[in-house]
Amino acid sequence: MQSFEIDKTDVLKLKQALEGDEEELVKLLGEYHASEIAILFSKIPLESQKRIINLLPAETASEVLSEMDFEAHPEELLLELDPERRQEIVEELDYDDATDIIAQLDEEDQQEILQDLDTEDASNIRNLLSYKEDSAGGLMNTQLIKIYANMSKKQAIDEIIQQSEEIEEFYTVYVVDESDTLKGIISLKNLIKAKASVKVADLINEDFIYVKAQVDQEEVADLISQYNLTSIPVVDDHLKLLGRVTFDDVIDVLEEENTEDMLKISGVSEDEELSGNWQAAVKSRLPWLVINLVTAFLASSVIRYFEPTITHILILPAYMTIIAGMGGNAATQALAVTVRRITLSDLSDNQAYRTVIKEFTVGLVNGAIIGLIVFMAALFYDSNPLLGLVIFIAMAGNLMIAGLAGSSIPLVLKRVGIDPAIASSIIITTFTDVFGFLLLLGLASKLLL
Amino acid sequence: MQSFEIDKTDVLKLKQALEGDEEELVKLLGEYHASEIAILFSKIPLESQKRIINLLPAETASEVLSEMDFEAHPEELLLELDPERRQEIVEELDYDDATDIIAQLDEEDQQEILQDLDTEDASNIRNLLSYKEDSAGGLMNTQLIKIYANMSKKQAIDEIIQQSEEIEEFYTVYVVDESDTLKGIISLKNLIKAKASVKVADLINEDFIYVKAQVDQEEVADLISQYNLTSIPVVDDHLKLLGRVTFDDVIDVLEEENTEDMLKISGVSEDEELSGNWQAAVKSRLPWLVINLVTAFLASSVIRYFEPTITHILILPAYMTIIAGMGGNAATQALAVTVRRITLSDLSDNQAYRTVIKEFTVGLVNGAIIGLIVFMAALFYDSNPLLGLVIFIAMAGNLMIAGLAGSSIPLVLKRVGIDPAIASSIIITTFTDVFGFLLLLGLASKLLL
Repeated sequence: MQSFEIDKTDVLKLKQALEGDEEELVKLLGEYHASEIAILFSKIPLESQKRIINLLPAETASEVLSEMDFEAHPEELLLELDPERRQEIVEELDYDDATDIIAQLDEEDQQEILQDLDTEDASNIRNLLSYKEDSAGGLMNTQLIKIYANMSKKQAIDEIIQQSEEIEEFYTVYVVDESDTLKGIISLKNLIKAKASVKVADLINEDFIYVKAQVDQEEVADLISQYNLTSIPVVDDHLKLLGRVTFDDVIDVLEEENTEDMLKISGVSEDEELSGNWQAAVKSRLPWLVINLVTAFLASSVIRYFEPTITHILILPAYMTIIAGMGGNAATQALAVTVRRITLSDLSDNQAYRTVIKEFTVGLVNGAIIGLIVFMAALFYDSNPLLGLVIFIAMAGNLMIAGLAGSSIPLVLKRVGIDPAIASSIIITTFTDVFGFLLLLGLASKLLL
Repeated sequence: MQSFEIDKTDVLKLKQALEGDEEELVKLLGEYHASEIAILFSKIPLESQKRIINLLPAETASEVLSEMDFEAHPEELLLELDPERRQEIVEELDYDDATDIIAQLDEEDQQEILQDLDTEDASNIRNLLSYKEDSAGGLMNTQLIKIYANMSKKQAIDEIIQQSEEIEEFYTVYVVDESDTLKGIISLKNLIKAKASVKVADLINEDFIYVKAQVDQEEVADLISQYNLTSIPVVDDHLKLLGRVTFDDVIDVLEEENTEDMLKISGVSEDEELSGNWQAAVKSRLPWLVINLVTAFLASSVIRYFEPTITHILILPAYMTIIAGMGGNAATQALAVTVRRITLSDLSDNQAYRTVIKEFTVGLVNGAIIGLIVFMAALFYDSNPLLGLVIFIAMAGNLMIAGLAGSSIPLVLKRVGIDPAIASSIIITTFTDVFGFLLLLGLASKLLL
């Protein structure tokens, strides 16, 4: 199949087919990969989703559900289905995908779905539901291939072939002992290459990476990314093998964490759904705006304090907005670079120190250049060199503070264990507003009155 | 091996070992995975890196180089090495990794390295160097496993085992014809499970995803992520198999694209190196600040225009900063949510329309609530209900514009084919500054004079 993206034409075709007869619709659906149907589902109402899911083979239907974006609410679709159909589809789902979907429902609905499943499936999913959603345990799949170290090559291959009936994809074979303690990993390639007389024990790689179930998903993602792993085994405190997290889960985690960072740094709650309704957005953003309002009153009180100065130099407000605006933007620049750097790698004390010095210097240099331009504008518009000088100093000083605050605040937050992205532009710009006004108005009242 | 992260202790231990004798150093290095040494390299000077690389086995040394962050400049280290050692290491590198590193050097240094390699390696790397760095061709590795459709199961497995000597990891086997045209893919699992009498042709999966070499890396990443692929074949216009991109390259691409987005939205050039020096940062950020300065003058000229109004109502500047500040932050919120949503999935016209309506509503509601708080503050501080009313209207209006601009500008940019993240907070806050001042000062001059 040629690679392509779902576009408007696909959505239109599907909507037309939904109006037409069943046969046409089934034919059209046959042209799409499950993950493409999942994308189309984000563009059509729940009723149509339900109709399509009921037309698809159970295996495809389960893939569609597992590929649906969380914001498209696969759990609502699942709940809508007739109990028998639902059971059929859940049984086709990997345990981790089933758990992720069911976890979105409230307790009562969860029980309703679980009671229809066979005992083994239900207990596996109940077990996964007990892990925190953003931990290795919450991310892992319990379906994997495991063999014993004392098996011969032939026994191992037969066992792998048999176990792989139930598992669509596997990348690594895990070697365990009788109590399921993880002993090592082995690659299918090496097993096949080995002579017939070889035992599993001879091929084991004991130098492998694993995580405990309670580890945060961000760390799991870092490990998979750092060591280029297709999957990572998840164990309990006694090294008992519980499951595995695969690279595709991690790609989703990375996108999720990146979304959270971008929202936080912009003063939006990290759990705001991008496609949520306006009520949810108000609830997510209003608290940050109120915090900002408090800090804005702080900046405003600086202006109130200098009201007599403004009375005498009425041109000052026109420059105040320039200095505050430039300071805010320079601070946002320093903040974005520093936060992103902290996210991608831990900084040593020395690197952190050099980062702050660098941002301080950048702020000072940019501030001096921008300040010079504004100095000349002040000469041109207001023919007042002393006013120009005051503005120059205020601009350079404010951008210097912008660099200092934009880099040191996230670094300090990281040191004390707070997510540095919380040092959003909202917090940082307070510093530049207050300091910019203080500097401009303070200097003006000394030098220009 | 237990999973762990490189921390200060590791860096200290390494630095101590670098002072001590060689034997100690080699022993310490043996405790680390290549990707961990790569992280340590970002904390030590080039001279120490060179010494360590020369102590490591060539295979490990090549892994360290390929795992080094681009900002740690592996190409400089490579250039520092003695030609013989360098040749040895480059030969151990995968072609795509070697190309990525060499591509960072200037033409002359590239030639110096390539001329020492054997003809096949050099021509493979030269070929890869000809693709754009951020295309599928620039990302792909030419080392892969390929077999013919007319092979028997036994022939195929023998061929795979032989080819896999040169390839550390493979996830999918590609089936080609005599002219290397890609016919389909086959999984090792299915091949092993098949009966001995089966031919490769019987097992081929012809319904697979591929990309052309010129496709942008972001699209390659989307496909791998959407279809949960471990690797994707790269072909030319005649479907000739050129190479494959693996999931681990894509994880790096995603991190890179996310960094670029976060920088752009904050008004920093997307190619600023996070750990670059201050001169580079000034060069990257000053142009954006100058753009911002122009827009700030625009806002400033609104204030100049209303100078007579300010003369009569001297408290206005104290409120101007609150209204402009709140507008800027509300716009940044709307912008972050919208840009992130566009990045993660294409929006239909209808979805785009509803997004703008939603952000408009959020702005209006948040603006009314915040406006009410400021109205009460105006009553309390300045005992002026009419002033309070003007401020209320200006705040609600400005946050409404913030929602409108923050959502519609990136959506329009996307429609006309410009990266929506370029609608950075710098551009957006101009709208809120200018409109906020116009509304506040215009209303004040009508109602309060």
